[in-house]
Amino acid sequence: MPIETSLTALLGVKHPILSAPMDTIAGARLAAAVSAAGGFGILGGGYGDKAWLERETAKLAAASVPFGIGFITWSLAKKPELLDIALGAKPRAVMLSFGDPKPFAPHIKSAGARLICQVQTEDMARQALDAGADILIAQGTEAGGHGASRTTIDIVPAIVDLAAGRVPVVAAGGIADGRGLAAMLMLGASGVLLGTRFYASQECEGTEEAKKLICDASSGSTTRGVIFDLSRNIIWPGPFTGRSLVNDHARRWMGREIELLQNMPAVAVEYAAAREARNFDIAVVFAGEAVGLIHDIPPAAEIVERIASEAEGILLGRRNSSASLQA
Amino acid sequence: MPIETSLTALLGVKHPILSAPMDTIAGARLAAAVSAAGGFGILGGGYGDKAWLERETAKLAAASVPFGIGFITWSLAKKPELLDIALGAKPRAVMLSFGDPKPFAPHIKSAGARLICQVQTEDMARQALDAGADILIAQGTEAGGHGASRTTIDIVPAIVDLAAGRVPVVAAGGIADGRGLAAMLMLGASGVLLGTRFYASQECEGTEEAKKLICDASSGSTTRGVIFDLSRNIIWPGPFTGRSLVNDHARRWMGREIELLQNMPAVAVEYAAAREARNFDIAVVFAGEAVGLIHDIPPAAEIVERIASEAEGILLGRRNSSASLQA
Repeated sequence: MPIETSLTALLGVKHPILSAPMDTIAGARLAAAVSAAGGFGILGGGYGDKAWLERETAKLAAASVPFGIGFITWSLAKKPELLDIALGAKPRAVMLSFGDPKPFAPHIKSAGARLICQVQTEDMARQALDAGADILIAQGTEAGGHGASRTTIDIVPAIVDLAAGRVPVVAAGGIADGRGLAAMLMLGASGVLLGTRFYASQECEGTEEAKKLICDASSGSTTRGVIFDLSRNIIWPGPFTGRSLVNDHARRWMGREIELLQNMPAVAVEYAAAREARNFDIAVVFAGEAVGLIHDIPPAAEIVERIASEAEGILLGRRNSSASLQA
Repeated sequence: MPIETSLTALLGVKHPILSAPMDTIAGARLAAAVSAAGGFGILGGGYGDKAWLERETAKLAAASVPFGIGFITWSLAKKPELLDIALGAKPRAVMLSFGDPKPFAPHIKSAGARLICQVQTEDMARQALDAGADILIAQGTEAGGHGASRTTIDIVPAIVDLAAGRVPVVAAGGIADGRGLAAMLMLGASGVLLGTRFYASQECEGTEEAKKLICDASSGSTTRGVIFDLSRNIIWPGPFTGRSLVNDHARRWMGREIELLQNMPAVAVEYAAAREARNFDIAVVFAGEAVGLIHDIPPAAEIVERIASEAEGILLGRRNSSASLQA
């Protein structure tokens, strides 16, 4: 029996499981696979490449499944024309993260797409609701890639209380299995958004080397900071930082960020070369704290089904236990 | 219908809710009130005061309720005779946190008490299991007071998987209501340990000023670090740091810990005076990330009953929903 929530009703999907719009590694293949399995796949796009977006949205339109398209809000503000391309593909939802959604909200909503806003604080949630957000994603610091400092177990109930039932709240950060989905439902969330778990899927466009590093990583082997953004010469606005696997490059520069900035030209050259060579001792693998729960690289559909059925089993186990709420 | 778990069975209590051994503010009054309400109260003791421990254990023995006694392990190692006083009071369990439990485990277990070990990493959990721990507490960085860096949603499933059903795992850090208890059960925990929530209770020996500050604090207004330990001239071993409310003193020294160390004599005098004067602009109020969920100072029994009944309601709501697992 699927887990029905206000989120599954609003998006018209079977499972309350969303895949995160991870840079350009969350392409049409991944989004389509997640949606075909009953979840809700969200296309990435990173810092905005028009040709990439046109190509991937065309593939999604051809796949005949519901899908979302995600943007880094402060980056979209520099190339607002990308939103027209996105909306032209008739996404069921547009997800905005990391910035004020207000300038883009009317266009998204008048095109008939749902507005999903990812937030990391109560103030951001208020801003998103004011802009007309239909769904809030409460993202904890456990999340891979960019995010902020509040933990999932702290920010999820805070945003649930703030939303007060007006819109569904989706939990993100540190979730990779059915236990996590079931736990987030208990906190009042109506679904989950997963990045790292779908990174280690067959349809993700990440490199095999990176996927393997995620599978091999143990819990506790990620770090959040600005070292990789500085090394790539991408300066994010505060309070956002990136969570990644700890590698040699991270170990070398942790606590020495100012020095890194002062050595930027040389580091940037070294870093770009390492990235080109897929040398992940230096190049970043963005990943969340849930890495310890991830040990394989299955098809995305299997991930959706595994998480849904594990969560259903946990919830039904409690429902059907005759005498007590055994744990 | 109470939530029965392997933890409630092992401790012989009604609710899977433990109160944390918070310094000397978790005295006999608080522990007895929690246990009388069907939870499991754990006496504090801080850095070890023989007269205090004798007085408080005598009160607990007279209260005719089950109880535990908690120690800071590295501190107990300096005054091991305190363990004899503790065991003489016939606690149902002794809780050891922050250090190797091995030197104390045989004495505790041969006295017939359960050994509860609080851990923050997998290595610490292995060490505790090797020492014969009967119960593990997986503590996330959200917890108030001393702890480490891994988040609750990360460390709880990791320790549950490591324990593999051999011993009950209790979740700590960021939990203050029935939603948190229900969520932790989904992650595989068998109960929860709460500190900050019981700090803001009538029976806690903390000052009224501190309790009021906890009630007024919003989510996201705590910080973890060493500023207050340095200011009190108490040097903790790594990886442990303390989470507290952010106040003027924290804001003044955050990021300037070395400078604080260099100014120690003067700061220590100023700090001690502020503490004496209950000036919490300078003196510490240890508190966890769950402060945003705490808005009142009820009797401890009411806290236990409120959390238990909220969690039971959430779990039963799912059990009794006829058509779907609505969220």
